Amino acid sequence: MSSSDIFASEVLGTMVLVLLGGGVCAAVSLKRSKAFAAGWVAIAFGWGFAVLTGAYIAQSSGAHLNPAVTIALALKEGKGATPWSDVPVYLGSELLGAMLGAVLVWLVYYAQFQVTLREPDAVEMKDANPGPAHGVFFTSPEVRKPWLNLLTEVIATFVLIIAILTQGLVKDVDGTVGLGKLGALITALVVVGIGLSLGGPTGYAINPVRDLGPRIVHAVLPLPNKGGSDWSYAWVPVVGPLLGSAIAAGVYNLAWG
Amino acid sequence: MSSSDIFASEVLGTMVLVLLGGGVCAAVSLKRSKAFAAGWVAIAFGWGFAVLTGAYIAQSSGAHLNPAVTIALALKEGKGATPWSDVPVYLGSELLGAMLGAVLVWLVYYAQFQVTLREPDAVEMKDANPGPAHGVFFTSPEVRKPWLNLLTEVIATFVLIIAILTQGLVKDVDGTVGLGKLGALITALVVVGIGLSLGGPTGYAINPVRDLGPRIVHAVLPLPNKGGSDWSYAWVPVVGPLLGSAIAAGVYNLAWG
Amino acid sequence: MSSSDIFASEVLGTMVLVLLGGGVCAAVSLKRSKAFAAGWVAIAFGWGFAVLTGAYIAQSSGAHLNPAVTIALALKEGKGATPWSDVPVYLGSELLGAMLGAVLVWLVYYAQFQVTLREPDAVEMKDANPGPAHGVFFTSPEVRKPWLNLLTEVIATFVLIIAILTQGLVKDVDGTVGLGKLGALITALVVVGIGLSLGGPTGYAINPVRDLGPRIVHAVLPLPNKGGSDWSYAWVPVVGPLLGSAIAAGVYNLAWG
Amino acid sequence: MSSSDIFASEVLGTMVLVLLGGGVCAAVSLKRSKAFAAGWVAIAFGWGFAVLTGAYIAQSSGAHLNPAVTIALALKEGKGATPWSDVPVYLGSELLGAMLGAVLVWLVYYAQFQVTLREPDAVEMKDANPGPAHGVFFTSPEVRKPWLNLLTEVIATFVLIIAILTQGLVKDVDGTVGLGKLGALITALVVVGIGLSLGGPTGYAINPVRDLGPRIVHAVLPLPNKGGSDWSYAWVPVVGPLLGSAIAAGVYNLAWG
Repeated sequence: MSSSDIFASEVLGTMVLVLLGGGVCAAVSLKRSKAFAAGWVAIAFGWGFAVLTGAYIAQSSGAHLNPAVTIALALKEGKGATPWSDVPVYLGSELLGAMLGAVLVWLVYYAQFQVTLREPDAVEMKDANPGPAHGVFFTSPEVRKPWLNLLTEVIATFVLIIAILTQGLVKDVDGTVGLGKLGALITALVVVGIGLSLGGPTGYAINPVRDLGPRIVHAVLPLPNKGGSDWSYAWVPVVGPLLGSAIAAGVYNLAWG
Repeated sequence: MSSSDIFASEVLGTMVLVLLGGGVCAAVSLKRSKAFAAGWVAIAFGWGFAVLTGAYIAQSSGAHLNPAVTIALALKEGKGATPWSDVPVYLGSELLGAMLGAVLVWLVYYAQFQVTLREPDAVEMKDANPGPAHGVFFTSPEVRKPWLNLLTEVIATFVLIIAILTQGLVKDVDGTVGLGKLGALITALVVVGIGLSLGGPTGYAINPVRDLGPRIVHAVLPLPNKGGSDWSYAWVPVVGPLLGSAIAAGVYNLAWG
Repeated sequence: MSSSDIFASEVLGTMVLVLLGGGVCAAVSLKRSKAFAAGWVAIAFGWGFAVLTGAYIAQSSGAHLNPAVTIALALKEGKGATPWSDVPVYLGSELLGAMLGAVLVWLVYYAQFQVTLREPDAVEMKDANPGPAHGVFFTSPEVRKPWLNLLTEVIATFVLIIAILTQGLVKDVDGTVGLGKLGALITALVVVGIGLSLGGPTGYAINPVRDLGPRIVHAVLPLPNKGGSDWSYAWVPVVGPLLGSAIAAGVYNLAWG
Repeated sequence: MSSSDIFASEVLGTMVLVLLGGGVCAAVSLKRSKAFAAGWVAIAFGWGFAVLTGAYIAQSSGAHLNPAVTIALALKEGKGATPWSDVPVYLGSELLGAMLGAVLVWLVYYAQFQVTLREPDAVEMKDANPGPAHGVFFTSPEVRKPWLNLLTEVIATFVLIIAILTQGLVKDVDGTVGLGKLGALITALVVVGIGLSLGGPTGYAINPVRDLGPRIVHAVLPLPNKGGSDWSYAWVPVVGPLLGSAIAAGVYNLAWG
């Protein structure tokens, strides 16, 4: 597959991933949304089906959508590994797609952002977070202990990546050795599970660009009363997923490589 | 496939789509329903499994159930495209099916409509919407800004259509090039995801007949205290999905055509 | 397949269907249950996955689990139809299985029944239903209008049966012409959808034995303060599903037969 | 497959099962978690998708993850049975994996445990359970009647095991005779169903090591105000699942063997 084909596919897929993922955060947390206060079950399924949708859109390029996936597939031994020469185009398209997705969330919920952010006495203003509606764009820990937060992201990403790598051990129903249609569905449900089970402490980035891309967009968008973009925490959801990914690839190579 | 076969299949499938989709709105919003106030998660899964059910019923005609799908498959290049000569029978059967589905919702929830609409001090009367129980029949925006609402519908439908088109890139488990059994399941979960993530601002029509058909039925049904049918907004959930569909088909043809 | 093989398979499958289906009603409505007040989403998914579990257990006999399915497959034309000579063993095993399942629900929730029914001032005593904890054993309409309730059951069962019949049109992934593994999963999700969308007025029996079997068990079990078994309503969840099934088979034969 | 391959696969799979399963309990019950009070639907789906994730990770060893599964497959007649000589390595790796998973839950939710357990006036301190945050590590009955609780675990495990055994009757989509990809997905949804329907009285261990492993870890971890590890109840979630498993294997051998 050519670099430009990978680029188009991964930009579109990651864009939709972040559009739907950021979208469910907006849907649940912004005022004048029909899904306001729909709760954590909505968040977890929303992010999981965001992965599902993005994965189907980007299936022709393997649907990485996540530098943690790209790095793991590059570190992986044997067939199905991603050549290191393809890694830059994957990483670049993933970051660009995540930024575009965040812009689309802003457009879809434009009126809700205006209503919520112009009335700063709203319930979501009362917590200790760095700014209003920040959760739509980037993750924040409930208890700010960067090394513990990093550990949480490492473990959660390890689960995601080891589950993706081991699926390649069984041929999918359509004959492909990669994830295939059923494999992508299962990966999406694994993401729902990670959200339900491991998302409590940090909001489960488990994907560097899903956090960094929208954070950059948050920094430049003309949102009213938007507060800072919490750059001091930004390294955690980048380093944690990459570390978890490398550990998972290592364990995979040891146990099944 | 003959026009009459398409007609029967799409009328039945779209009828069930709107019966279950409108049904979950009735179940959650009408009094004396066991699902009263079950929340947005119920709505999103209800509509998604409505798509699933309708799609299986109409699988012999490709299960369009939605003019946005029909137009996208007509605009699509390459195999799996719908001939323009079949488009009129698809559109007509989709609209008729949607109207029949809305009538069935009214019959299933007849007693609940009577109870809810004859007691106009009910909680659902207190909002700014154009009439009681309107949400069972047609979508309404939370913040009424038609151009923003249109943009939301365009983006949400773009996601639906691009996900449907890209699934055709991989052969399904039953060997068909169209959606197949697994593909329809995934499309249904994509619709759950769109509802959770992008449904907040407008109630996600993402299907012209799902909104227009029941709106026509609402206008003629003898419901007590039913209020107007909000015709001034009716163009948004028709034009938005068609525009989103055309953009998705264009992007698909550019990237994978 | 021999009659005794059908019998064993359908008794076990229907037993588990009613054990899990009645179980989720007990889980949500009885006091001192960890799932107390978990809401309608829990009920709808609980019943759907009850169908899933029962269907896998009884797959060797086609997993009818429901007289409405048996009758529809007997009325259906073409391959996959059930011979009329097998109908009695299916109906008998379905009823027996449903009764056994209700007894198991009583055993699993024995302590919860005792706690709930011995404290008749509990919240669930305050509604207009015919007796405490009745909802674990049989359905009751929210608004008691037998002909309307019948219509609701007819329409809901029509949806179930037409979705089952049309799945036979496409070969499943395992090559069978019946439901197959994926088909049974989809049918289960269709049942979740029917519950979310059409369960509001009557509690969606959509299966004569699912209501009649446990109702008989309720009449004879030594539950404290159990109230009557509401026999005056018992015909509705028997006749409605059978009527809906016959209509669905007729429509199927006309449209695809 | 060599013993060391089984060992690595089952340790990793069971570790992830308990990490995600214990994780969702922590997410919902500990303070300063984003999923706090997300309810029983979250718990049931969280445990089900924990099974899904663990099952995919351990698919190369058959993904037992549970002594009840190992024993049933050893007792099962015909192909797909586990040789008794492999049973010790399965049981040992399952217990070790469960213990490791519980340690990971403690690490992921370290800050939440500290906050919750150092403020013993919290809402979760007010119930009759044997110690704070115990539910993250082991199950407790709502009404403590050991023989009734045992019966509940026997019945719930019977459902799980009979559903697993009968799936082997139909070849999976990838041609394997075991669970395969689709079969594991269905088993995960069966576990969601068991949780929703039968989890109310005892919290559904249905797996001896899922309860015993984390209980041992709870006994040794330096948690503040952790209370006792309720060893008097510990036999119930071990004996119940093993008994239910043996009954299911016997019924399977009688009906389909």
